[in-house]
Amino acid sequence: MSEEWKKENRLLEESDEKRQHKPRSQEDETDEWDYLEEREELTEERILEMLEARQYKELKEELENNMYPVDLADILEEFDQKQLVLVFRLLAKEEAAETFTYMNSDMREVLINALTDSELEEVMEEMYLDDTVDVLEEMPANVVDRLLMATDEETRVQINQLLQYPEDSAGSVMNVDYIALRREMTVAEAILKIRQVGLNRETIYTCYVTEKRKLIGQVDVKELLTTSESKTIEEIMDTNMLYGHTTDDQEVVAGIIRKYGLIALPIVDHENCMVGIVTVDDAMLVLQEEATEDISIMAGVSPSEESYFGTTVVEHVKSRLPWLLFLMLSATITQMIMNSYESALAVMPQLAGFVPMLTGTGGNCGSQSSTLVIRGLAVGEIEFSDLLKVIWKEVRIAVSISVILAVVNGVRIVLMGQGDAMMAFTIGVTMACTVIIAKVVGCTLPLIAKKVGLDPAIMATPLISTLVDISTISVYFAIVSYVFQL
Amino acid sequence: MSEEWKKENRLLEESDEKRQHKPRSQEDETDEWDYLEEREELTEERILEMLEARQYKELKEELENNMYPVDLADILEEFDQKQLVLVFRLLAKEEAAETFTYMNSDMREVLINALTDSELEEVMEEMYLDDTVDVLEEMPANVVDRLLMATDEETRVQINQLLQYPEDSAGSVMNVDYIALRREMTVAEAILKIRQVGLNRETIYTCYVTEKRKLIGQVDVKELLTTSESKTIEEIMDTNMLYGHTTDDQEVVAGIIRKYGLIALPIVDHENCMVGIVTVDDAMLVLQEEATEDISIMAGVSPSEESYFGTTVVEHVKSRLPWLLFLMLSATITQMIMNSYESALAVMPQLAGFVPMLTGTGGNCGSQSSTLVIRGLAVGEIEFSDLLKVIWKEVRIAVSISVILAVVNGVRIVLMGQGDAMMAFTIGVTMACTVIIAKVVGCTLPLIAKKVGLDPAIMATPLISTLVDISTISVYFAIVSYVFQL
Repeated sequence: MSEEWKKENRLLEESDEKRQHKPRSQEDETDEWDYLEEREELTEERILEMLEARQYKELKEELENNMYPVDLADILEEFDQKQLVLVFRLLAKEEAAETFTYMNSDMREVLINALTDSELEEVMEEMYLDDTVDVLEEMPANVVDRLLMATDEETRVQINQLLQYPEDSAGSVMNVDYIALRREMTVAEAILKIRQVGLNRETIYTCYVTEKRKLIGQVDVKELLTTSESKTIEEIMDTNMLYGHTTDDQEVVAGIIRKYGLIALPIVDHENCMVGIVTVDDAMLVLQEEATEDISIMAGVSPSEESYFGTTVVEHVKSRLPWLLFLMLSATITQMIMNSYESALAVMPQLAGFVPMLTGTGGNCGSQSSTLVIRGLAVGEIEFSDLLKVIWKEVRIAVSISVILAVVNGVRIVLMGQGDAMMAFTIGVTMACTVIIAKVVGCTLPLIAKKVGLDPAIMATPLISTLVDISTISVYFAIVSYVFQL
Repeated sequence: MSEEWKKENRLLEESDEKRQHKPRSQEDETDEWDYLEEREELTEERILEMLEARQYKELKEELENNMYPVDLADILEEFDQKQLVLVFRLLAKEEAAETFTYMNSDMREVLINALTDSELEEVMEEMYLDDTVDVLEEMPANVVDRLLMATDEETRVQINQLLQYPEDSAGSVMNVDYIALRREMTVAEAILKIRQVGLNRETIYTCYVTEKRKLIGQVDVKELLTTSESKTIEEIMDTNMLYGHTTDDQEVVAGIIRKYGLIALPIVDHENCMVGIVTVDDAMLVLQEEATEDISIMAGVSPSEESYFGTTVVEHVKSRLPWLLFLMLSATITQMIMNSYESALAVMPQLAGFVPMLTGTGGNCGSQSSTLVIRGLAVGEIEFSDLLKVIWKEVRIAVSISVILAVVNGVRIVLMGQGDAMMAFTIGVTMACTVIIAKVVGCTLPLIAKKVGLDPAIMATPLISTLVDISTISVYFAIVSYVFQL
């Protein structure tokens, strides 16, 4: 036993998340310590070997006992189409359905084209409705038709309803399976109902009390377990609950789940009828996606739901090119300003040498401010009404920083013999103006974007640094041409 | 009733997260629709009014029925010390303890200094151990002593143990309260145990089976509820579970909880004894903190756990200055390169005008690549072993982008009369080199940082753009001085 633990620890020290937390087998529960015994891990290489050797039966068993669907989907991404279909067919239908939900859209299309109608039907039956809808949203129309034909009438109606919610709305990520109780039920009856309907884990931990389909209260399973069985639901239900609407942004709903530490949030429609729940596991994925989206936008990349490697070169180019083109052409303005000081540069060409340092420092100052404000907006700490408060803070920060940078840079210029005291002073003044402008522009633009309904993240580094370049160069040449009378 | 719903909807449309999902009162449960009736919201202004009017009893009642601790902590941040202590003393001790855990360290210190020993003892008693440890980690030594004196002997031993886990480790965020079962128990006995120990919500939904303190299995509450009561835990327990170690990074543990959609992850110590669990609500907060930290570092700001407004101007300056100073001084290199081409600039001063556009585009290209790679590393999609795969992808993207940018820019130069075809061609070649260098440097540095144990996020925009500035300017002047024989 200590051998296994040692192995676990060794793996852990290698800090390889994927391996160290791999589940152990539970094949033979009658042998007391069996599940702690040494056991070969089911890696990509091992699966390929077993496929090669046609050990399908062993592979099927291993896949069932020794693999999580989310990990398998990762591994299958590396496989070719034939291998993918082969392994998928070995899976028990529950595992198949769950693995399917974790795949990217290319893999899904391969499988949908390869599977027979009856196989497809089995997978669709096992999938949760919210996952089915996610799959359908990404598929071309002919595939959608085929998938819908593989579901029964009732499910089809529900799917069509879910498909109507706007993308990224709470309605589009919610789960329609939840436990609904009535106020007059006793605790014993409620527990009986949970036993009967079952469902998956997250969905039973909070039960919802409805009346004429309207949400009127909620009861934790914990409450049910720790209360006298003869009490009624009405006596123990919490009517003081949080809820969201189907049209809420998924990020807002996920933020509420995070803020209040909930397991699930009930969702009501425009008539305030309870229609589903958003569970904490989906909320975590939504928040991850949104953070990735924000970070991409902040770097001037159009966000995509695909992963880095899942995106083709052409798609990468398409998502990166627009901002680069826009910013490159905006830089024409800087160039025009500099060209108008051509004669000054001909007389004092060393003036050009300070330009990258000034614009670089300005860009960095601006991106610090814009990034902190964008993040503050994203986590709900900063709002548009804080505009003046933010500007006042940034101005004070900018003044302190600009004095320090100007002095350090001035000393450097004199020590390195790049200019005299007059030059050091002039650059210092420009530096101070640049820092203050950059910080104010950097903190203001994201707030304005938010106010006018744009994503604040587009106001990050690339745009800010281009704007700051323009202002820095204008200020710089205005100051130097005045001081040195060029 | 429809009035209240309309109000809710109106609030929702204003998209003010804090308000719209405010809980409704449950003061009088005997009145059927009471909790849906119109009711004034408990805002900051309202609390201040009630304090002013000395309506302490009404305020106490409102605070109990109409306010979540996390929201109250937000509101209290705006209050002065006297008001803070006054409101805090009105809270029931459970609410007081929970509100306390959501406060920032300044507010906590004010309260600790204002409360009597017995009041402090009550708060400490109600707090979960992991929260107590968080509080203690931030307090000066004399306050820690006073807090520890307010706890009983047993708790003190546990706290001291938790305090020894490294900051940001799983041990430091875990909850030591969980339900431990024995394998020979029946389902009925297990449910009885849950009834007896109770604890808070998240901690009961998965129960852990231990033997000689070692973790040997887990059982979902759902399993307990839907199985025959006479079965033993051994028969239904899942031995194929995930777990973490006390020394694991909190981000890794939170990532596992997100990836596998768990409610809680059991944590074992170096002897593999079960010592606690990390719950999904804490995991969400950890992931939020880590995302904020990454974003701050990527903007060249030293991360802090405090919020934007919770950080003083001096602290903001301290966290932003180091990178700005470093990058400003690095820009000296660019300046030295440009100065060495002083005579060329004197002859063709218009060459300087292209510098901001070239360095700007290079910086933006580099930051796109570095940001996508840093995020890929953070969510576990990209690893160091993917280095060549990433470079190959970025090179192909860079070549496509550079051709488009060079052509567009060349046409622009000729059209705007900023140069002849030769100039357009020269700038185009420089542009292409810049884009390719920027993309390769941008994608490589974060991977190398990860490999040598640094945070990849430090390799983001500010550093990349400074490096790209240097290489762009070297390449640019080398090319133009060759082409135009300067």
